Amino acid sequence: MNMSRCLITQREVQSFIEGCMVAVGTKPGHAKSLAEVLVEGDHRGHYSHGLNRMDMYVKDIQTGICEKDGEPTIVKESVATALVNGNNLLGPVVGNFCMDLAIRKAREVGIGWVVAHGSNHFGIAGYYSMQALKENMIGMSYTNTSPLVMPTRAKECTLGTNPISVAAPAKDGDSFVLDMATSAVALGKVELHHRRAQRRGPGAHRGCEETGGYKGYGLGLMVEVFCGILAGAQYSRHVRTWKVTDKVADLGQCFVAINPENFAAGFNDRMSDLLTLHRNLEPAELDTPVLSPGDPERSNIEKCAKLGGIPYHINVVNHMNGVAKKIGVTPLLPTNVPVPE
Amino acid sequence: MNMSRCLITQREVQSFIEGCMVAVGTKPGHAKSLAEVLVEGDHRGHYSHGLNRMDMYVKDIQTGICEKDGEPTIVKESVATALVNGNNLLGPVVGNFCMDLAIRKAREVGIGWVVAHGSNHFGIAGYYSMQALKENMIGMSYTNTSPLVMPTRAKECTLGTNPISVAAPAKDGDSFVLDMATSAVALGKVELHHRRAQRRGPGAHRGCEETGGYKGYGLGLMVEVFCGILAGAQYSRHVRTWKVTDKVADLGQCFVAINPENFAAGFNDRMSDLLTLHRNLEPAELDTPVLSPGDPERSNIEKCAKLGGIPYHINVVNHMNGVAKKIGVTPLLPTNVPVPE
Repeated sequence: MNMSRCLITQREVQSFIEGCMVAVGTKPGHAKSLAEVLVEGDHRGHYSHGLNRMDMYVKDIQTGICEKDGEPTIVKESVATALVNGNNLLGPVVGNFCMDLAIRKAREVGIGWVVAHGSNHFGIAGYYSMQALKENMIGMSYTNTSPLVMPTRAKECTLGTNPISVAAPAKDGDSFVLDMATSAVALGKVELHHRRAQRRGPGAHRGCEETGGYKGYGLGLMVEVFCGILAGAQYSRHVRTWKVTDKVADLGQCFVAINPENFAAGFNDRMSDLLTLHRNLEPAELDTPVLSPGDPERSNIEKCAKLGGIPYHINVVNHMNGVAKKIGVTPLLPTNVPVPE
Repeated sequence: MNMSRCLITQREVQSFIEGCMVAVGTKPGHAKSLAEVLVEGDHRGHYSHGLNRMDMYVKDIQTGICEKDGEPTIVKESVATALVNGNNLLGPVVGNFCMDLAIRKAREVGIGWVVAHGSNHFGIAGYYSMQALKENMIGMSYTNTSPLVMPTRAKECTLGTNPISVAAPAKDGDSFVLDMATSAVALGKVELHHRRAQRRGPGAHRGCEETGGYKGYGLGLMVEVFCGILAGAQYSRHVRTWKVTDKVADLGQCFVAINPENFAAGFNDRMSDLLTLHRNLEPAELDTPVLSPGDPERSNIEKCAKLGGIPYHINVVNHMNGVAKKIGVTPLLPTNVPVPE
C-alpha cells in the first residue's frame, strides 16, 4: 500500500480541470477539449502530460499569453493538405481541428497532411494520432517544443523533446500506438520528479548531455522540418524557453491520417499478426514479456479500471488544489483509501 | 598513406557494375539504375551499401530469384496515393518508379504517398528521398529488411535494420538529409567489416542484443507499418533470412514527396537557418564541429572530388574482380597510387 497516492475518478478530474479553465475565462468547449487530453494522458500512465500540467494552462489563459476564445482557420488547402493558423488557441483545440481535417481528407483521397502554426502545448501526441483509429486509419502527430536537448557535439540546447506519435488499427479494437519523445527523456518526467520529490532531481540541462546521440538529434530535426519549418511557426532555438510566459509560443505541429483502404487489402489482419507475433515471443527474462507499442498504456488503463479511478501522487493533487483555491474552484477530494502499488 | 586502399573513378565503378549486371542478363536500363544507386552509396561514404553489395545483386539475377526485365505496375491509385507492385524487379527500379510517382502527385496535390510490395534491396534509402530535392520538395523513403534485430526483452530477431530517410531542401543547393537505420548498427557495416578484415567481426546476432532499446524497436515497427503492412508485402519475421537466395524477397517499401509550396512561404530560408544555426553552434570539443544530417556525406563527396575518385579497400575490389572474372567482365583496374587517409 502506498499512502502518498490517492484515487480520483476520471470524471472528477475531467470536471475539475474544466472548472479551473472556465474559471479563468476559457470558452467551455475549449476547456473540455483540454481536460480530455490531460485526463487521457494520466489514464494512459503519461502522468507527465496530465493533471500535473494544469497549472501551466491556467496561467497561459490568466496572463492572456494564450487565447481563450476563437477557432483555428485554414490558411491554404488542397484535397490532401492544409496549412492551419492555430490563432494562438489552446493546443488541444488546434490539434482536434487539424486531426479532424486530416481524417476528412484521408477519407476522400487516402491521405491528409495538415500542419499548424500559432499553436500551444497539446498534451500527449498519442491523443491525436489515436483519433484516426476510430476511422480505421493510421494517424500521426508531431509537435516541436521548447529547446531542452543539446545536438550531438554541442554545448547548447536547440531542440525540444519533439515527440512523434504513430497509431495504426489492428483487428477487434487492438492497435499499435507509438508515442515517444525523440530525446532520451521527456521533459515532463523531469518536472514530475521534482514535484513529487519536492526537491531537485536530475536537471533538464544535465539530461541534455546524456541524450545527445546522432539518431535522436536527427529525428528531433526531422520533427522540426515537419512542424516549425513546414508550418512557418517558431522552430529550434527560436521557440520560447520552457515556462517563459511573456511570449506567445507559436508552436508548429503536424497531423496526418492515412487510409489503409487506399493500399493493400487485409491491413487489419496483418497488423494483428504483427502485434501478436511480438507479444508471443519468448522473453529474454521470464517475468518481462515482450510488448508492442501501446501495451504499457493499455495495462495502465486496465489498472485504473480495476482500482475504479486514476491514482495520483498526493503532492500533485495538493498543488492543483492550491491553484483551484486561488480561482475559486472546489478542490479535488482525494479518497482516503490507500492505493495498492 | 594507406596501401590497402585504391582509388577508382565514379565512372569506372558505374560502368563496371553495369557491365557485371548486363553480363548476367539484366536489362541495361535496370543495370544502370542499380549501378547509380550503389555508386552513390560509396560516393556518400555509405560503403556498406555500394560496390560491396554487387555480388548479391549479380547472384539474385543469376539464380532468377529477382526479375531481370519488366516494369513495376500501379495496382491502386488516388490523386495523392498509390499501391505499386514491384513485380520482383531490382529494388532501384521499383524505388525510382515509386519516387517519380510520389513527386508527380506532390506537384498536383501537395503530397504523394506511394507504397510498393514485390520489391528487393534498393541500396541507400537516401538516394530516393533526395530525388525530391531536385523538385524543391521534401522526400522520404523507408524499406523493411531481413530480420536481424531483437525487439526489447526478446531473444529472437524479428525486425530488420528498417532504415528511414528524410531529405529537405534549403537555399543554394544546401539540404538536410537524414538516412539512418532504426537499429543501432546497419547490417552492411557488419558485412563490410568481415570482408575488409577477412575474419569474423562482431556478429549481427550479437549486435541484436546491444541494439534492443525501446525507441529503436518502436521505430522499426513503424517502418514495418508503412512498408510490409501497408503494402501487403512480407513483414517482420516473415521476411526471408538475410542471404537466403532460394526465396523471393517481396520487400515492402514506402516513398513520400511533400511540396512545401502547399504550406507556409519561406520554407527554404527557414531550412537554411535551421542548418546554419546548428553548424555554427559552439562545439563541446574544439575539433569536432556540430554537424547537420547530410554533412558527413557532403564531406565524403568533397574528399572524393579532391582525390579524383572513390577510395576502396583493396579486398573489396579484389573480391568483385573475382565475381567479374567468372562472368567474363573486365576487372576494375585499381590505380597504383596509394590513397591518403
